[in-house]
Amino acid sequence: MVYLTRKEHFNAAHRLHNSKWSDEKNREVFGKCNNENWHGHNFELYITVKGEPDPETGFVYNAKELSKIIKEKAVDRLDHKNLNLDVDFMQGIMPSTENLAKAIWQQLEPALEDCELHCVQIWETDRIYVEYYGT
Amino acid sequence: MVYLTRKEHFNAAHRLHNSKWSDEKNREVFGKCNNENWHGHNFELYITVKGEPDPETGFVYNAKELSKIIKEKAVDRLDHKNLNLDVDFMQGIMPSTENLAKAIWQQLEPALEDCELHCVQIWETDRIYVEYYGT
Amino acid sequence: MVYLTRKEHFNAAHRLHNSKWSDEKNREVFGKCNNENWHGHNFELYITVKGEPDPETGFVYNAKELSKIIKEKAVDRLDHKNLNLDVDFMQGIMPSTENLAKAIWQQLEPALEDCELHCVQIWETDRIYVEYYGT
Amino acid sequence: MVYLTRKEHFNAAHRLHNSKWSDEKNREVFGKCNNENWHGHNFELYITVKGEPDPETGFVYNAKELSKIIKEKAVDRLDHKNLNLDVDFMQGIMPSTENLAKAIWQQLEPALEDCELHCVQIWETDRIYVEYYGT
Amino acid sequence: MVYLTRKEHFNAAHRLHNSKWSDEKNREVFGKCNNENWHGHNFELYITVKGEPDPETGFVYNAKELSKIIKEKAVDRLDHKNLNLDVDFMQGIMPSTENLAKAIWQQLEPALEDCELHCVQIWETDRIYVEYYGT
Amino acid sequence: MVYLTRKEHFNAAHRLHNSKWSDEKNREVFGKCNNENWHGHNFELYITVKGEPDPETGFVYNAKELSKIIKEKAVDRLDHKNLNLDVDFMQGIMPSTENLAKAIWQQLEPALEDCELHCVQIWETDRIYVEYYGT
Repeated sequence: MVYLTRKEHFNAAHRLHNSKWSDEKNREVFGKCNNENWHGHNFELYITVKGEPDPETGFVYNAKELSKIIKEKAVDRLDHKNLNLDVDFMQGIMPSTENLAKAIWQQLEPALEDCELHCVQIWETDRIYVEYYGT
Repeated sequence: MVYLTRKEHFNAAHRLHNSKWSDEKNREVFGKCNNENWHGHNFELYITVKGEPDPETGFVYNAKELSKIIKEKAVDRLDHKNLNLDVDFMQGIMPSTENLAKAIWQQLEPALEDCELHCVQIWETDRIYVEYYGT
Repeated sequence: MVYLTRKEHFNAAHRLHNSKWSDEKNREVFGKCNNENWHGHNFELYITVKGEPDPETGFVYNAKELSKIIKEKAVDRLDHKNLNLDVDFMQGIMPSTENLAKAIWQQLEPALEDCELHCVQIWETDRIYVEYYGT
Repeated sequence: MVYLTRKEHFNAAHRLHNSKWSDEKNREVFGKCNNENWHGHNFELYITVKGEPDPETGFVYNAKELSKIIKEKAVDRLDHKNLNLDVDFMQGIMPSTENLAKAIWQQLEPALEDCELHCVQIWETDRIYVEYYGT
Repeated sequence: MVYLTRKEHFNAAHRLHNSKWSDEKNREVFGKCNNENWHGHNFELYITVKGEPDPETGFVYNAKELSKIIKEKAVDRLDHKNLNLDVDFMQGIMPSTENLAKAIWQQLEPALEDCELHCVQIWETDRIYVEYYGT
Repeated sequence: MVYLTRKEHFNAAHRLHNSKWSDEKNREVFGKCNNENWHGHNFELYITVKGEPDPETGFVYNAKELSKIIKEKAVDRLDHKNLNLDVDFMQGIMPSTENLAKAIWQQLEPALEDCELHCVQIWETDRIYVEYYGT
């Protein structure tokens, strides 16, 4: 079993806000991330798949194909978007990086053939990242 | 003359849009950066000052003081903000990274004592950065 | 289960020296790290916690809270310190990066509520890092 | 159990080409990596070993020794080489990064004493890396 | 005057060899870079242009346009190529990184409109880079 | 004229302390950097030389030779050392990074033949660096 990771990139705006809470509680919990006029990040996305290298190609997965799938299923729908308003698969979901990782897993997993999705890792800043392994 | 550079960080949302143009022309020129629901970045800010090292301290400038000034004059007013809506010193200015660098220079330059501001450098993504040297 | 990692930073001096050994053997085993006048590093510390994202916040843990705990329990006690002389929780312990990771685990683990500490990772240089998972 | 990782570096040329296939199919599958005049990469190699820190040294493994072994068994045989033509342990193996990771594992594993090889990780570019854990 | 830098990437193989010299002298001067079976690198290319930001866009140059020009004039002709054999504008030129920077300048400079090329910077490894400013 | 930069690395301990001042003033000015038990850094050193590429080699300077000179004149005398106590060319000099850059210039400049030293750049942490151009 070999693991192959491909890095992609997207920029997006978001706001952390729980509509069931008062403005005061939202500011207390989410701090500057609650700004009603949004803020944003350069998100770095690392997608890891696993499998046996194909004897004909030496590849777990063709990295160019993997990049295409990540772009089609995730990056093109997220890049230069507002995570709260513009992204269909984030509707009704608090756009924390944790929830974003789980949602990207659900977009990618059915699209990968002949290999297994292993991890969705997202760097929100160069000091914070999350990982989701599907369970 | 020695040059001292201090790196700081802020996240922000922005939108590139020229209100004198049609929506079509805005989309043509600014592409995805024209998204009306905003997008955002992790901006990396490098501030360079220059001067003779002080014989008593060996410092061109106390790096902790420099950090404080950059935070007070720039980062605290930009971090987790919307560059188009929330930042007083960007009012009426197209929030391109070029213009942001010039505006940050104007905020910082008068606040620095006993040394000279040399360069404002801003990385918008890890593939694009701008530099402004004051003229 | 989602994993959240927060990066923090500290600078410190240390010396690798086993007082049960001759000076010659110390130099042979530890090489330049045995310098009696100390040397130092910029240590990069990555703390990973795991848990289910809170349905109200979308967070495994509030990253700002996590940062505060790491600073209080580890970074503030290590930063700009001498690992052999100044750090209470390293007394009597050889200050290898391996042992430092285990000691930081013991400081952090009891302080984390509602989530589980998963990994302490420390980069000693940009070519050497260690990881400890608690067992 | 503590994990220790050491990073090393090598540059090499390679070509992905399956001699059982037509030139057309090779170009279709391998794209630009099929260039008959070769191309190359700066490969970053991360070797992770695991074990209990030695009570006398605090080390899982002496990092300088680990570096020596990686250089002798892998880097010196790969650096500034052609992976298809110059590397004895890659003869008859498609030089994908996946297969290279497995081959490096086989070179290193028998040479490590008193600790266990845990992972061979290779970055082919700063956007693609593979990992192999021995099974 | 504001400076805008755009980073691009290409992989290539090359060999340093002076045909006027003996094999022995080539090995002595160029060391491992003289390998007759080639070696290669991930080259990072930073192109800096300068100019006044356009009052309508806030741009020194549209970064997407700049990227297109760099790709058309340089990256597409270098990526996954052999610098000695495959690149028309390197014919008859020793493919040192220094000479490559000068040759890329000559390709890019005539293609840039309404702004001035300021610097071609190439990282050959993460420890060696060159810069060329046109004179 | 082409500029060639070579990166090297050293770890060292130091303490900022002006013996003409009271302990209180030292703590006030130098903060944690005044710790009497030392602290340390991973210093990254970038040395830039300039010149015309040699027509026979394409090199401004042989990068391997440059590395040897930097190691002999600077890195070997600084690595795993105490900048206040162990380094002959820093005796009597406040070991700020600014002063260290000037002192390294003085060590390197006379040792470089057939090219010109252009810049000594030192990163003290990944957020602070200094540059010295010889005047």
